[in-house]
Amino acid sequence: INKTKLQVNDAGIGEYDHYMQKEIFEQAAVLKQTLEGRIANGRLLSDCFGKGAEEAFRSIEEVQIVACGTSFHAGLVAKYWFESVAGLPCHIEVASEFRYRPHIVIRKTLFVTISQSGETADTLAALQASSDIGYAHTLTICNVPESSLVRESEWALMTKAGPEIGVASTKAFTTQLTALLLLVIALGKHHKIDDKKEIEIVRQLEVLPEQVAEVLRLEPDIIEFAKQFSNKHHALFLGRGEQYPVAMEGALKLKEISYIHAEAYPAGELKHGPLALVDDQMPVVAVAPNNDLLEKLKSNLQEVQARGGELFVFADTHAIFEEVKGLKIIRVSEINEIVAPIIYTVPLQLLAYHVAVIKGTDVDQPRNLAKSVTVE
Amino acid sequence: INKTKLQVNDAGIGEYDHYMQKEIFEQAAVLKQTLEGRIANGRLLSDCFGKGAEEAFRSIEEVQIVACGTSFHAGLVAKYWFESVAGLPCHIEVASEFRYRPHIVIRKTLFVTISQSGETADTLAALQASSDIGYAHTLTICNVPESSLVRESEWALMTKAGPEIGVASTKAFTTQLTALLLLVIALGKHHKIDDKKEIEIVRQLEVLPEQVAEVLRLEPDIIEFAKQFSNKHHALFLGRGEQYPVAMEGALKLKEISYIHAEAYPAGELKHGPLALVDDQMPVVAVAPNNDLLEKLKSNLQEVQARGGELFVFADTHAIFEEVKGLKIIRVSEINEIVAPIIYTVPLQLLAYHVAVIKGTDVDQPRNLAKSVTVE
Repeated sequence: INKTKLQVNDAGIGEYDHYMQKEIFEQAAVLKQTLEGRIANGRLLSDCFGKGAEEAFRSIEEVQIVACGTSFHAGLVAKYWFESVAGLPCHIEVASEFRYRPHIVIRKTLFVTISQSGETADTLAALQASSDIGYAHTLTICNVPESSLVRESEWALMTKAGPEIGVASTKAFTTQLTALLLLVIALGKHHKIDDKKEIEIVRQLEVLPEQVAEVLRLEPDIIEFAKQFSNKHHALFLGRGEQYPVAMEGALKLKEISYIHAEAYPAGELKHGPLALVDDQMPVVAVAPNNDLLEKLKSNLQEVQARGGELFVFADTHAIFEEVKGLKIIRVSEINEIVAPIIYTVPLQLLAYHVAVIKGTDVDQPRNLAKSVTVE
Repeated sequence: INKTKLQVNDAGIGEYDHYMQKEIFEQAAVLKQTLEGRIANGRLLSDCFGKGAEEAFRSIEEVQIVACGTSFHAGLVAKYWFESVAGLPCHIEVASEFRYRPHIVIRKTLFVTISQSGETADTLAALQASSDIGYAHTLTICNVPESSLVRESEWALMTKAGPEIGVASTKAFTTQLTALLLLVIALGKHHKIDDKKEIEIVRQLEVLPEQVAEVLRLEPDIIEFAKQFSNKHHALFLGRGEQYPVAMEGALKLKEISYIHAEAYPAGELKHGPLALVDDQMPVVAVAPNNDLLEKLKSNLQEVQARGGELFVFADTHAIFEEVKGLKIIRVSEINEIVAPIIYTVPLQLLAYHVAVIKGTDVDQPRNLAKSVTVE
């Protein structure tokens, strides 16, 4: 009898070894899906966000994002986009913190929640508490249409990632980023984003799935990096600006599935404490598309090279680095700055995945963790 | 000839083994010094902040804090105070991040820098950049009167910590918090802080030095905790609300001088990833004055107790906890919520100090670090 039972969870693994690997490789396709019917001819299509949203967006002056875990990292990238690209002040807080303190809302603020499942307990509670605080409107970015967050928000922008089985979120994160970028355009149109800028961003979104497919081809190089990580117990992940949350997400993946204690820092904070930890047991990973940051990092690390400190860098093909001992680089094709956080996430997912595979952990079901955190 | 040379750096160590220990124990005295001439009869004295400040504070609507490292943690506590106690929106960013992106200032905003030395390169550069952004006024919280930050800010509120020799900042941090609380009152008077609240906070500041002296008497208990930490390579520090930055500072101390990879999380984020790391090699430290948080933490940790997960808690004497395996508590006298971040910092400093002493590291001169980071 048991034999005839369908193994639903295993049905979709295909040529891959784990759901997580499959979901990483699905990203080009699900990003395309998430963009479908939402952009065309270099423009954001109207009515992406539901009834009345477009009209209401005209008066929005600030954004408050609330989320947990990986979704919180997506929100952190969006904060940079909202403030630097769209010209709207954006505040962000983890849901379990947001819930337990008072808030001051003065200007017309859109309250945005982000969650793959739409059932994250703290995020849902924060949304429910928000109605008494005085936010102008609520919107959720979510992957499950029939979820509580979607039901209880005024508007929902669905990510079209499809079911995500691996506990460590991958394709949900990059589709969240893509959806957030659509929201940045929609709100930013009434602020700092002019026609020319909208066309530029949409063009970048149009080629994004293809660029993700390209960066996935780095897998063999990343396996080589992974081999050098699998015997480590620690790592520091560094980024600057919108790449700092990408570093946070990279560190979280490594934590979740390989049980390596990886921690992210904004690169400039390294000298204010964590540099004391760096030795041959504590490699440093930098997400550094541009040269400026890397030159500073290299000077920081020179003093620890005697102690065996190693620097693993993801940087674009045009960045020029002086060769130094202990510096290893994986080159990513040069891409537009706006989509860089999405692109640079992918090699870090692959790194975490292959380290976990080498270590032999339960990649899709890491210890102690649940797929959606429906308790507080 | 050498014999007659004064050992200036060693002159002041007295009965202590290291500068850091001396500086931790000096805190009751330097907090008193920092408060002198600034509060009296339950009120904040006018003219604490320099010429014209009091008048200008009437119109301040928001606060932007910029700092690095330990000073950044002080600013994070102040963000909670400004928003929850004073009713002013407060934004905070590490200086090396703040410098490199555009900012939007709409309401009348006070730009606040925090630095022990007043020479932190990124913080100084952020102050210099701020003049073009449109902040209403600038103020620095600093320990060195003749420093660049003091010279280049409109107003300075000096911490009276005296020279800090240990690279890992201790008394500078708690005097910064105390000075920030004075600023919270001064600005909050024109917002949510009424006479009654001002009197309540000032009364708490008046007894603060004595309460710090009392918490220092926990040293023997903390040495027992420290013994259980010295063979560990990792730790998680958890807090909620204004105790989250206290947890961050506790983790940073342990990193800096004991080279244990300690990382802080807001307690509610534990289930969103870091829980995967917890086993008998990864103790969890919680700064949890109240019961609520601890009950949730305990349920989180029950599932990892089989794996040897241990929970070390600092909580107040009135909190009631059910005994569970792997839970160890140090009791701190019950104190007013407003000064709790200052009080709970002290046992975490002692913990880091004694772990480092047991491990035999160079406590006052940790590897790779400089006392003031005057390069970028």
